[in-house]
Amino acid sequence: HLPLALIAGPCQMESRAHALEMAAALKEICGKLGIGLVYKSSFDKANRTSAGGARGIGLAGALPVFAEIRETLGLPVLTDVHEPGQCAPVAEVVDVLQIPAFLCRQTDLLLAAAATGRVVNVKKGQFLAPWDMKNVLAKVTGAGNPKVMATERGVSFGYNTLVSDMRALPIMAAMGAPVVFDATHSVQQPGGQGTSSGGQREFVAVLARAAVAIGVAGLFIETHPDPDNAPSDGPNMVPLKAFPALIEELMAFDKLAKARLRA
Amino acid sequence: HLPLALIAGPCQMESRAHALEMAAALKEICGKLGIGLVYKSSFDKANRTSAGGARGIGLAGALPVFAEIRETLGLPVLTDVHEPGQCAPVAEVVDVLQIPAFLCRQTDLLLAAAATGRVVNVKKGQFLAPWDMKNVLAKVTGAGNPKVMATERGVSFGYNTLVSDMRALPIMAAMGAPVVFDATHSVQQPGGQGTSSGGQREFVAVLARAAVAIGVAGLFIETHPDPDNAPSDGPNMVPLKAFPALIEELMAFDKLAKARLRA
Amino acid sequence: HLPLALIAGPCQMESRAHALEMAAALKEICGKLGIGLVYKSSFDKANRTSAGGARGIGLAGALPVFAEIRETLGLPVLTDVHEPGQCAPVAEVVDVLQIPAFLCRQTDLLLAAAATGRVVNVKKGQFLAPWDMKNVLAKVTGAGNPKVMATERGVSFGYNTLVSDMRALPIMAAMGAPVVFDATHSVQQPGGQGTSSGGQREFVAVLARAAVAIGVAGLFIETHPDPDNAPSDGPNMVPLKAFPALIEELMAFDKLAKARLRA
Amino acid sequence: HLPLALIAGPCQMESRAHALEMAAALKEICGKLGIGLVYKSSFDKANRTSAGGARGIGLAGALPVFAEIRETLGLPVLTDVHEPGQCAPVAEVVDVLQIPAFLCRQTDLLLAAAATGRVVNVKKGQFLAPWDMKNVLAKVTGAGNPKVMATERGVSFGYNTLVSDMRALPIMAAMGAPVVFDATHSVQQPGGQGTSSGGQREFVAVLARAAVAIGVAGLFIETHPDPDNAPSDGPNMVPLKAFPALIEELMAFDKLAKARLRA
Repeated sequence: HLPLALIAGPCQMESRAHALEMAAALKEICGKLGIGLVYKSSFDKANRTSAGGARGIGLAGALPVFAEIRETLGLPVLTDVHEPGQCAPVAEVVDVLQIPAFLCRQTDLLLAAAATGRVVNVKKGQFLAPWDMKNVLAKVTGAGNPKVMATERGVSFGYNTLVSDMRALPIMAAMGAPVVFDATHSVQQPGGQGTSSGGQREFVAVLARAAVAIGVAGLFIETHPDPDNAPSDGPNMVPLKAFPALIEELMAFDKLAKARLRA
Repeated sequence: HLPLALIAGPCQMESRAHALEMAAALKEICGKLGIGLVYKSSFDKANRTSAGGARGIGLAGALPVFAEIRETLGLPVLTDVHEPGQCAPVAEVVDVLQIPAFLCRQTDLLLAAAATGRVVNVKKGQFLAPWDMKNVLAKVTGAGNPKVMATERGVSFGYNTLVSDMRALPIMAAMGAPVVFDATHSVQQPGGQGTSSGGQREFVAVLARAAVAIGVAGLFIETHPDPDNAPSDGPNMVPLKAFPALIEELMAFDKLAKARLRA
Repeated sequence: HLPLALIAGPCQMESRAHALEMAAALKEICGKLGIGLVYKSSFDKANRTSAGGARGIGLAGALPVFAEIRETLGLPVLTDVHEPGQCAPVAEVVDVLQIPAFLCRQTDLLLAAAATGRVVNVKKGQFLAPWDMKNVLAKVTGAGNPKVMATERGVSFGYNTLVSDMRALPIMAAMGAPVVFDATHSVQQPGGQGTSSGGQREFVAVLARAAVAIGVAGLFIETHPDPDNAPSDGPNMVPLKAFPALIEELMAFDKLAKARLRA
Repeated sequence: HLPLALIAGPCQMESRAHALEMAAALKEICGKLGIGLVYKSSFDKANRTSAGGARGIGLAGALPVFAEIRETLGLPVLTDVHEPGQCAPVAEVVDVLQIPAFLCRQTDLLLAAAATGRVVNVKKGQFLAPWDMKNVLAKVTGAGNPKVMATERGVSFGYNTLVSDMRALPIMAAMGAPVVFDATHSVQQPGGQGTSSGGQREFVAVLARAAVAIGVAGLFIETHPDPDNAPSDGPNMVPLKAFPALIEELMAFDKLAKARLRA
């Protein structure tokens, strides 16, 4: 049982400068804390609640910046892909291809991501039972790529609400894939603000703590220097200045959890 | 309030011969009953529960068959699209482009479908509140295509289960788009058979009757001469031989419902 | 398949005068329409959202009024019971003892109600699957009383929300008991107004129409001359002046549905 | 922030000998571990799935045994009450009166329990939002009894399934009442075995760990020397021989959680 790793970064890539600044800040925080970091950012928010939502700087704009982050900071990078054709070019500059939750059953996208040979992180759909991730993961491994991860990010519970069923963590771990808990999207309130999604930032630490105590390979946490003015997912991102204390606390629970599991 | 229309056909296009036979049979049934028909079939089942599920004959194989059905039988045709790039070629031979439920928030797909000028039928995601379809429909109309329809096909209710919230029908109708009730996918049990989805065919008539009594523009019903041996959605498709009596019954309820609405 | 019957009245008994007036008004309406009526009213709202909610005039105050309604108007009467000890005295003056949804699994209450020999109407709990009503009904029939009815009034769907799963109607009908659809509590929003429950009166007609089209033995509809000023359940009760047109419409659907079932 | 306390015991009182033996065994285990214990057992299972389920030895049989456990072992005792009339006699021999989840909105039961002056532990209904417990707790405190506790035991999620929404723990804690997590009923599958409820014992430790890491005042865990042959709740009770290791582990997480909260 390896120690907890982090997938963290701002929801979307806002600019080259913003990305490099965020990546450097997170690298410094995680270095001090002694926790592994994968830098996360989206080049395109392809499924915004409404057409007017900001979508990001796009594939062409983002790829050189991802490459720069990897080279200059030595950080592994994760981003999400939305169409099969994006997988190959994205895989040239990132380490982990992420499949968005709504798209977790799109066979061609999973196969194209698998074919890159990169790690594939599949977010469990809000409409999917934990045991049904077995078929999803098998689409990737069956294509010859064993490097697949599963991420829990909440399941539909009535309207405009997600609930985190913590039983999903051991159920997916039993499939053999590293399991990640996405603590910021799990507190999303889909469509909850009319033309954008709401969120309950105050529960990020609560749910993350629960997940880490149960035992996960990694945490996915979106963070931003000024979430309330971020172009997307502001209501659920963690302010950067609160990030170090949150991670330090979660590392303490992880240490205890992994010690118990080893015993 | 126009009389009820039907979107019907087998879940996937199995072969040219099968498609032409089904289309002719449905045309004859609907002609006798006096109900409008749009022929439906998928060229690709892009999100099967598991990678081993049959996917259909593919875009290249299906397009000439759709064209042939339109020309020889004079039937309007509907099929679903899964990537933006499919929209333009598909639009050349079909009348209605359908957006699958899992993809109902993929902005690029909606915009590409809108740009064809064809009617766009969006299935409401299993994770979406009825009022959130307003933003979805606005992505299409905002792109300059007013010809958009909304289809109810069930909402996530716990694991491996959908429930039909009938309040969704008037809520979506108030948005101004024609509302369709998908009576066969609404009785699906997603992932309910381990490596494929289950279904409860016995409730198709029950839910369809409820929807028609409330008042809908159309019904979406998948039908097959031998559902138990169909390559997909067998557990929820209606056997073709039971189809005429079912539709006749639903037309009686539609007539009453529309008479009341007119009054 | 008998024609539709009605269980109707104000949520709680407010006073002798109010009860007699309502019963007389409903008798006249139903007489004109030619539909059977059971007069419903609660003597105690035993599970209000908060302690400050009005509870009604109580057992001792209500029993003579129920007796008077039966004698002077010749109407059968229904009321709900909350403790085993209430069943025998209530059964002396009412025709149907109703078991509230939260209490549908309280064995002693079901047995005490069964022991009176009166008809027992059990509301399905918001937490209960339709198939689990079999065990509930068997508690009554197993105690020697075959006169048991099952009422659908919505199932928990996330927080503060109910959904009407219309599949419950045929599932419960297959158990052999007359099935009633409670159209006013099904649109309740439990706890949805902070210290009281909200409701969506605009969906009463929608859901009732769906239920009647599917086929039910009866409808349960609370009505009030001035719902917005009623002491309980105001947001979901039907205004008395809208009642005749609503029932007339539902009778038309019932006639069609029962004709189809007979065929 | 006081250290974690335990409410533990077999689901139902099976006999005087069994109760004394269990209480002594639990007292010894908890004494060695250094954790506070409240002995729990039900005298009546008043809402079994079916009428044939064993209900326990009853009020008259149980009260002397509760008294004997308190006197000879010095353990505080908790049991659940189902009707207002049971509260006063039960309060003479137990320390905590528990309100079952289905009954959490029955005003008279809450008031009668409050009037005894004993601690009242209210289980949150499977149909209730966490924020709606405010009104429930206020029924007890408004009656002049400030000694009220709130217990989370899962919320309805589709049919025959509960989910533990861990956000409920801090939401209820903010109301000022000690919050308990019921780890064995939270893994129940209501009605899931046809004529009795199923359970997923393997998730007791998982959910308990999550709750303790978040921070709770107490845990409620049913345990039995031979759960598979217990008269009720067997599928979700923890075997007594697994109990000490489970509690020791949870105490380690509690210690860490409370240290962080104090900091």
